[in-house]
Amino acid sequence: MPHHPIPVGVLGATGAVGQRFIALLAHHPWFRLTDLLASERSAGKRYGEAVNWVLDTPLPPHIAEMPVKLGQPGGITAQILFSALPTDEAAELEPQLAAAGHYIFSNASAHRMEPDVPLVVTEINPDHLELVRVQQARRGWEGFIVCNANCTATHLVGALHPLHLAFGVERVFVATLQAASGAGYPGVPSLDLIDNILPHSYGEEEKVQTEPLKIMGTLSDGAVRPAPLQISAHCHRVPVIDGHYEAVSVALRSPATREDVLTAFRCYRRLPQELGLPSAPDPAVVVMEATNRPQPRLDRMAGNGMATVVGRIRPCNLFDWRFSLLGHNTIRGAAGGSILNAEFMVHQGLITA
Amino acid sequence: MPHHPIPVGVLGATGAVGQRFIALLAHHPWFRLTDLLASERSAGKRYGEAVNWVLDTPLPPHIAEMPVKLGQPGGITAQILFSALPTDEAAELEPQLAAAGHYIFSNASAHRMEPDVPLVVTEINPDHLELVRVQQARRGWEGFIVCNANCTATHLVGALHPLHLAFGVERVFVATLQAASGAGYPGVPSLDLIDNILPHSYGEEEKVQTEPLKIMGTLSDGAVRPAPLQISAHCHRVPVIDGHYEAVSVALRSPATREDVLTAFRCYRRLPQELGLPSAPDPAVVVMEATNRPQPRLDRMAGNGMATVVGRIRPCNLFDWRFSLLGHNTIRGAAGGSILNAEFMVHQGLITA
Amino acid sequence: MPHHPIPVGVLGATGAVGQRFIALLAHHPWFRLTDLLASERSAGKRYGEAVNWVLDTPLPPHIAEMPVKLGQPGGITAQILFSALPTDEAAELEPQLAAAGHYIFSNASAHRMEPDVPLVVTEINPDHLELVRVQQARRGWEGFIVCNANCTATHLVGALHPLHLAFGVERVFVATLQAASGAGYPGVPSLDLIDNILPHSYGEEEKVQTEPLKIMGTLSDGAVRPAPLQISAHCHRVPVIDGHYEAVSVALRSPATREDVLTAFRCYRRLPQELGLPSAPDPAVVVMEATNRPQPRLDRMAGNGMATVVGRIRPCNLFDWRFSLLGHNTIRGAAGGSILNAEFMVHQGLITA
Amino acid sequence: MPHHPIPVGVLGATGAVGQRFIALLAHHPWFRLTDLLASERSAGKRYGEAVNWVLDTPLPPHIAEMPVKLGQPGGITAQILFSALPTDEAAELEPQLAAAGHYIFSNASAHRMEPDVPLVVTEINPDHLELVRVQQARRGWEGFIVCNANCTATHLVGALHPLHLAFGVERVFVATLQAASGAGYPGVPSLDLIDNILPHSYGEEEKVQTEPLKIMGTLSDGAVRPAPLQISAHCHRVPVIDGHYEAVSVALRSPATREDVLTAFRCYRRLPQELGLPSAPDPAVVVMEATNRPQPRLDRMAGNGMATVVGRIRPCNLFDWRFSLLGHNTIRGAAGGSILNAEFMVHQGLITA
Repeated sequence: MPHHPIPVGVLGATGAVGQRFIALLAHHPWFRLTDLLASERSAGKRYGEAVNWVLDTPLPPHIAEMPVKLGQPGGITAQILFSALPTDEAAELEPQLAAAGHYIFSNASAHRMEPDVPLVVTEINPDHLELVRVQQARRGWEGFIVCNANCTATHLVGALHPLHLAFGVERVFVATLQAASGAGYPGVPSLDLIDNILPHSYGEEEKVQTEPLKIMGTLSDGAVRPAPLQISAHCHRVPVIDGHYEAVSVALRSPATREDVLTAFRCYRRLPQELGLPSAPDPAVVVMEATNRPQPRLDRMAGNGMATVVGRIRPCNLFDWRFSLLGHNTIRGAAGGSILNAEFMVHQGLITA
Repeated sequence: MPHHPIPVGVLGATGAVGQRFIALLAHHPWFRLTDLLASERSAGKRYGEAVNWVLDTPLPPHIAEMPVKLGQPGGITAQILFSALPTDEAAELEPQLAAAGHYIFSNASAHRMEPDVPLVVTEINPDHLELVRVQQARRGWEGFIVCNANCTATHLVGALHPLHLAFGVERVFVATLQAASGAGYPGVPSLDLIDNILPHSYGEEEKVQTEPLKIMGTLSDGAVRPAPLQISAHCHRVPVIDGHYEAVSVALRSPATREDVLTAFRCYRRLPQELGLPSAPDPAVVVMEATNRPQPRLDRMAGNGMATVVGRIRPCNLFDWRFSLLGHNTIRGAAGGSILNAEFMVHQGLITA
Repeated sequence: MPHHPIPVGVLGATGAVGQRFIALLAHHPWFRLTDLLASERSAGKRYGEAVNWVLDTPLPPHIAEMPVKLGQPGGITAQILFSALPTDEAAELEPQLAAAGHYIFSNASAHRMEPDVPLVVTEINPDHLELVRVQQARRGWEGFIVCNANCTATHLVGALHPLHLAFGVERVFVATLQAASGAGYPGVPSLDLIDNILPHSYGEEEKVQTEPLKIMGTLSDGAVRPAPLQISAHCHRVPVIDGHYEAVSVALRSPATREDVLTAFRCYRRLPQELGLPSAPDPAVVVMEATNRPQPRLDRMAGNGMATVVGRIRPCNLFDWRFSLLGHNTIRGAAGGSILNAEFMVHQGLITA
Repeated sequence: MPHHPIPVGVLGATGAVGQRFIALLAHHPWFRLTDLLASERSAGKRYGEAVNWVLDTPLPPHIAEMPVKLGQPGGITAQILFSALPTDEAAELEPQLAAAGHYIFSNASAHRMEPDVPLVVTEINPDHLELVRVQQARRGWEGFIVCNANCTATHLVGALHPLHLAFGVERVFVATLQAASGAGYPGVPSLDLIDNILPHSYGEEEKVQTEPLKIMGTLSDGAVRPAPLQISAHCHRVPVIDGHYEAVSVALRSPATREDVLTAFRCYRRLPQELGLPSAPDPAVVVMEATNRPQPRLDRMAGNGMATVVGRIRPCNLFDWRFSLLGHNTIRGAAGGSILNAEFMVHQGLITA
C-alpha cells in the first residue's frame, strides 16, 4: 500500500519475542527493518553474533549481518518501533522514546492499562487508536505508545468478540493451557515441564480478567469505559512450545442456538480482513468441527499464526455454551498483533513514517 | 485387623490398572493375592511372562512366578475380586462373577450409574454400601458389585465434599489436565502428547459431571437421590505420566471466608481415617500454600498416592472460591480407591471372605 | 520438466507416511495425485472422512474430497505408485502391482535387500536404478519396485557419502536418537516417551548396519557388491515428533583434516542438485558451526526437510572424526526420498508414465 | 557402625544437588545433618524459606526448620562437609575449608583431576583414598578434599569396571542420553527440551573421556597412573527428569563370550557390598534381560538409585560387545556417590569426626 518501504525498528531485538518480530518483519511488504535495538551487552555486535536464535525458522542471512544498536533515544533511523522489551525496561524506555517522537507499538504489559494508552486488537477496537491524540496532548509527546494485549487475552477476546457482537457476553469462565514460549528464553526450566504442568502466576490471571474488558470497552470523551462482563481465569503452563489453548464457558445476554454460535464465528469479518492488511488472517476465526480439535501442535499455525481457532462448541451445564480456543502466542499473541496494529495505522494514514 | 490373610484376586491383571492393583496388593497387610485373572491370551502363562510391566516400581518376584488364570466363573480361589477390566468386558463378566458369589470391587465404569450399584468413595458415602443388599435381592446374586468412581471424579469429589459438608456446594466449574496413564497402555499415542495437549472425549466430561452427584447423594428407601449441585467439566489430556490436575471454581450455599475454606479442608477427617484402614491417607486432603502448587510430578504421591492435594485457594470473579486440586489417578483414582472400599467392608464385617 | 502432469497414486494413503506422501504430492509441479489407495476399511469413503490427519500442515481441501480406492491391481489410474504400506502388506501387494505393470516407489522395508531391487538414495546411487531391467527380466514383470532406504540409514548415508567419496569410510559407530513419527500412528505409546527414552529394536539396528553398504555399493554384472565398510549402530527412540539425530564416529581410509572434512561436506553436489529436480535440496548437506547444533526442532526442516544437516565436527579419540547429523525422517527419510527417486527416473526418461 | 551419630554439613544446600544430599542424609543411620550451608543470599533464613524444593519427595519438616548458615570457614559444627557447590565456588571455597580442617566430600568438578585429590567410586578404587595423606602433606592441610566423579562417568565406570577386572577394557565408544536434572535448577530451558534433544558441551565429553582413566588407574608412589584405555564420548541431553542412559561398545583385551560378560556383571561384588555400607547397593550392577531395558523412568531407582543397570548385551560389529547402561544421575551420580565415600572412610576408621 505505501509507495516506499517504511523503516521500522525492534526494541529488545535479541529476546524471544524480538526474534519473532524480526522473523515477521524480515520480508514484510510494507516495512523495512532498519534498527535492531538492544542493551549495551549486545550493541555494537552483528545481530547474528549477539542473538541466540531460538525459532525453528532460520535467521534470515541479511538480518544476521545487521549491526545491533543501543536502544536509546538518538541515533535511531526508524520512527516506528516495535517493542519486545521486558516490562520493567518498557516502563522506563518506551515513554522516553515516545517523547522523542517515536511511534511505539508495544508488546510489553507496562502501559497497557493506562487510561490514555490504547490497548488494541485490530479486529475489535481500532477506533481506540484515537486515544493517541489524548495521550500526545496530555503528555506533550510527538510520538505515542500503542499496546497490544497479553497473549492469552488476545485470543480469548478474539473468540469472545464475535459472540459479544451477536449476543452479548456477560460471564466467562476460562481455564488456560499455555505454551512455554510465552515465558521467553530461557523462561520455564525443563524440570518444571517434563512430566509436569505448572500453575501460572496470579498476575497472569489478572491480565486475562481485565484486559478483555478494556479491549471490548467503549471509547467516549477520550476515555474507555470497560465492557460490562466478568471473567474468571485459571491459568497454567503446559509442555507445549507454541500455542495457547483455552477452555471457555460463556453466559450470553441473548439466547443463542449452537447454529447461531457457529454462524457468529463464521461470519466474523472485520476491518483488517476487509482492508486486506498484509498480516490480517482471513478468516480471523477458524472453526473446527472434530471433537478433538483444536490442538496446539496441529492448529497453531492457522492463518499463518494470526487466526484464533475455535472448536468443541457444546452446551454448558451452568452457563450457555462452552468451547475451546487456540491461538499462536508469539505470533498473533505478541509480535504479529503489534504489527497488524501498525499496518492499520499506516493504511488509514494515521501515521506516515 | 482380620486374623488371617484374606484371599483376593485381580480381574484384568495384565493391564495397566491391573498392575497397579497388584503393586498395591502384593504386600498388603490384610489381603493375599491368590488369583491373577486375565483373558485366554494370557491364561496359563507365568504372570512375569504374560505382563508388559509398565510401572516404575519393580514387579515383585513372588508375583512374577504366579500363574495367570482365566477370568471366568469357576476355578477362582478368592471370593473378593478387584476388577480392572475394560468397560465392555466388565459389562459382561462382572455380573456373571457376582452371580457366582464373588464380591466384585470394580474400577470399571460399566455399572457405576446403575441404581442398585453403590458408587463409593470411602470417606464420603460408605453408607451407600448398604445398596448391595438391594442389589443382591433384586438380582438374586450371592455376590455383588461395588464400584469406585472415575479417576477425575474421585479427586474432584474428594475436594468438594469437605466444602459441601461445611457450606453446601451448588455449582462447580472444573477444567482438568489429566495424565496419560488414565488411558492405560498403550493408551494415548506419543504423537498426540509431544508438544501438544489433547482435548478429552465428551464421555469423560459426562462422567465427571454426573458421578459426583451420585457419590454425594442421599440413600433412602434403597435408592440414591443425587446431590443437588451442577457441574460443568472441561477435560484435557496433558503430557504427564501420573496425576490428574483440576482447576475448580465453586459457588457455595453459605458464605465462607478463605479461612473457613482452609479450615474445612484441614479438619476433614472421616471413617477411613478414624478406623485407620491400611490404605487410608491421613489427612485425606492435603493443603498446600505455595501459589505454584500442587504440581503433578511433585505432589501426586501425597498420602502414598491416596490423598487429594488442594492449593491456590483464591476468590473467584464469578462464583465464591477457586482452587486447584491434584490426585494420583491410578492409585486413589483407580486401584487404591477400590481397595479402600474393600478394606472398609472387611473392617465393618460387611464381608467375611 | 514433463509436458503434462503425470498421474501418481499412493498405497497406504491413510497412514502417517501415506499422509506425508500426499502432503508432498498435493501441489507437486510434475505429478498429479489420481489414486488414494487403502484397505477395504477405507475404500469407498471420501479421503477426508477416512483419514485421521496427523500432520501439522492442513489436509488440502481438494484431496479431502477425493475418493479412497481399494489398493489392489485393477481400477488404478496411475502407473506410478508410491508405497507407504506396512511391511507385511508390501511384501504381498507390491509384487502383484509390479507384475500388473505399475512402477512402485516403495518406502517399505519388505523388498529393500533383495538382490534385484534397487535401494536408492538419489544423490548416491542413481546408477543402481538399472537393476530394474534385471528385475523385470528375471521376474517377468512389466512394472518394477524401487526402494528408498530406512529413515535412519538414509541420513546416515547422506552424511557418510561425501566422506566416502573423498577419503573412504572404513568403520562407523553411530548412536541414534530417533523421532516418534518414525513408528507411525498410533506408534509409540506416550507412557513410553514421557520422562523416558526407549531403546529401539535390534531389527532397526540391523537395517542401519546393512542398508548403507548396499546403497554405497558397486553395481556390476547386474548385481550390487556391498561397500566394504562396517557399521555398529545403537538405536533409540526419544520424545521428539520429527527429526532423527545421529552421533557418528568414522574411521577413514585416507587422512583428512577438519578443513578437509568441512570441504567434503560443503562441496558435495550431485545429480539431483545439478538437474534441479523439484524435490532436491541444494545443498544436500547443510553444515552448521555452532557446537550445540543440529537440534531436531530447529533444524529438521533444512532444505524443506530434504537435506541432511551435519555439525559438531571434532576429532575422535578412537577413530578419525566424529560429528552429529540430523534429518527429517518422514520427509527425506521416507516419502520425500521416494518422490525424488521418481523425479529422477522421469527426468532421465527411464519411465514415461 | 559408629556409636554416635556423626555431624555432617552440606555446602550449597539450597541447589538441586544440595537438596539431594539433604534428602539422602535426613534419615541417615550414621550421619546427622547439623549444617546447611549456603551463600549470603540464603544465610540466616530457615531452610524451608530459603529453598525452592524441586525433588518429588517432600522436604522433611525437621530440615525445613533448620537455619541456613553461611558457607565460610568458622562457625561450622560438622567436620565432614558434603559439597554441592558450583565449580567456580568449589574451586575457591573447598581448599579454604580443607585448610581449616574440614573433610570435604565434593561433587564439584573443580579439583577432580588434581594429582593429589582422590577421585573415588567406592566399589572401584577406595585404595586411592590414601592420596589424602599426600594431599595433606603437600598442602599443609588438616582436612582434605575427596571427589566423586561426573555423573555420566560414574555409571560408565560402574559398568566398565567388572569387564575391566575380568577381561581388560581397551577401547570404549559411548553415546549418552542424559537427564535434565544433571544441569541443576533452573538448568536447561524447557524450550530446549520439548520436542527436542540438546547436544551436550564438549567439556562434558572431556570429563567422560578422562575421569574413568583416573578412577580405574593404579596408585603407586603417591600418584595415580591412568588406566590404559581410550574412550570416545558423544554426550546429549534428553527430555528426562532423572537417569542417564549410555549406549556403549567395548573392545576387550581377552576374548569373552556373552555368558562371560553376564557372569562378570553378575558376580561383581566389592568392598561396599561386603562391608554392608548403608548406602551401598547390592548388587552394584543390575542386569536386565529384556531387549527394551533399561529405560530411565522405569529403572533409575534400582538399588535405591545407587546401582548401575545394564542390558541389551549383544555383539558389536566393530568392537567386542555392546550394551546399554543406566543410572540415577543425582543419587549415585552425585550426592549418593559422595556419601558412600564418606561411609567407607568412617567404617575403615580413616576419619573419626
